[in-house]
Amino acid sequence: MCKQPQTVSFTLPGWVRDFSADIPSGMSVEQRMAIVIEAARQNVLRRTGGPFAAAVFEINSGKLVALGVNLVTTQGLSMLHGEMVALSLAQRERNTWNLGEDVAHELVTSTEPCAMCLGAVCWSGVTRVVSGASEADARALGFDEGPKPENWQLELQQRDIEVIPEILRDDAVKVLQAYRQQGGVVYNSR
Amino acid sequence: MCKQPQTVSFTLPGWVRDFSADIPSGMSVEQRMAIVIEAARQNVLRRTGGPFAAAVFEINSGKLVALGVNLVTTQGLSMLHGEMVALSLAQRERNTWNLGEDVAHELVTSTEPCAMCLGAVCWSGVTRVVSGASEADARALGFDEGPKPENWQLELQQRDIEVIPEILRDDAVKVLQAYRQQGGVVYNSR
Repeated sequence: MCKQPQTVSFTLPGWVRDFSADIPSGMSVEQRMAIVIEAARQNVLRRTGGPFAAAVFEINSGKLVALGVNLVTTQGLSMLHGEMVALSLAQRERNTWNLGEDVAHELVTSTEPCAMCLGAVCWSGVTRVVSGASEADARALGFDEGPKPENWQLELQQRDIEVIPEILRDDAVKVLQAYRQQGGVVYNSR
Repeated sequence: MCKQPQTVSFTLPGWVRDFSADIPSGMSVEQRMAIVIEAARQNVLRRTGGPFAAAVFEINSGKLVALGVNLVTTQGLSMLHGEMVALSLAQRERNTWNLGEDVAHELVTSTEPCAMCLGAVCWSGVTRVVSGASEADARALGFDEGPKPENWQLELQQRDIEVIPEILRDDAVKVLQAYRQQGGVVYNSR
């Protein structure tokens, strides 16, 4: 075969560094979600990816570990949903593939995880998922969430992962709507 | 917050380059699977990751586009299942996040995709999945496949993705067994 690439890398858009630089610890769950939804909104406005963002926080301290945004179209990899970006950046920051080793971590995501990100949550070591827009919201705007079990929240709970759904849901939906209004690509929605 | 990483990268172990260098086109589905299972076996022997490998081929020509192996523990990212590595390397090789754009591509994987990889398949653009060991085989050896719908094959078919399961299944199971016998880590099997 022709020589295949040996390395894959992806990089956040430059604005994320400034955006995430001054975020304080100790925020409430709603405040954490507001940050994530604003990141999703900025990702649409700046046209750096899809209308989704996610972040890993330390649950107890509320410290932000890593903020990610959807980078599928701009970084050229279909796996780069906001959740995957946030989880992998957090694992680099913590220098471990298991965020459940020591301090408890949560994933805060602007829209319910799709099938891929739901699985990724289970392998990541996070012990809580906080989500904004629901699967129904995403589907109503043309985003396929993929082959997910209907009882996904129960599936996570059975793996000792708490779920807090529909935090600031209306604000999260507005970002999805803004993306559609801007004519953003809804990719691979077969 | 402290400065988060801005980039994530991962790299195949060096032996994969040599292993994949001389693989001919035009192989049957069984021959393609045999290559993938041998890569999984090498990944165990050389202790470069878990007992799983996957590859993206052009369906019609049988040309290998990218070979991936599980790199979770050695590269420190929980998302690096063999399928995710192969799909992302193939998207880099083809310079697109959608492997369904032009030539038809398939994912050949030594074990049925877990929940994460099942979702990733849907977003990748591949139009066929060929798998070896089954979910039951993986579970019997302690590997959790995550929150997957029971009718996952139907879910893929409904998205115009063909599934060819249990190709060289016994050979694939032997690699899982070898990993357990070697004392390999079965991570995050809560």
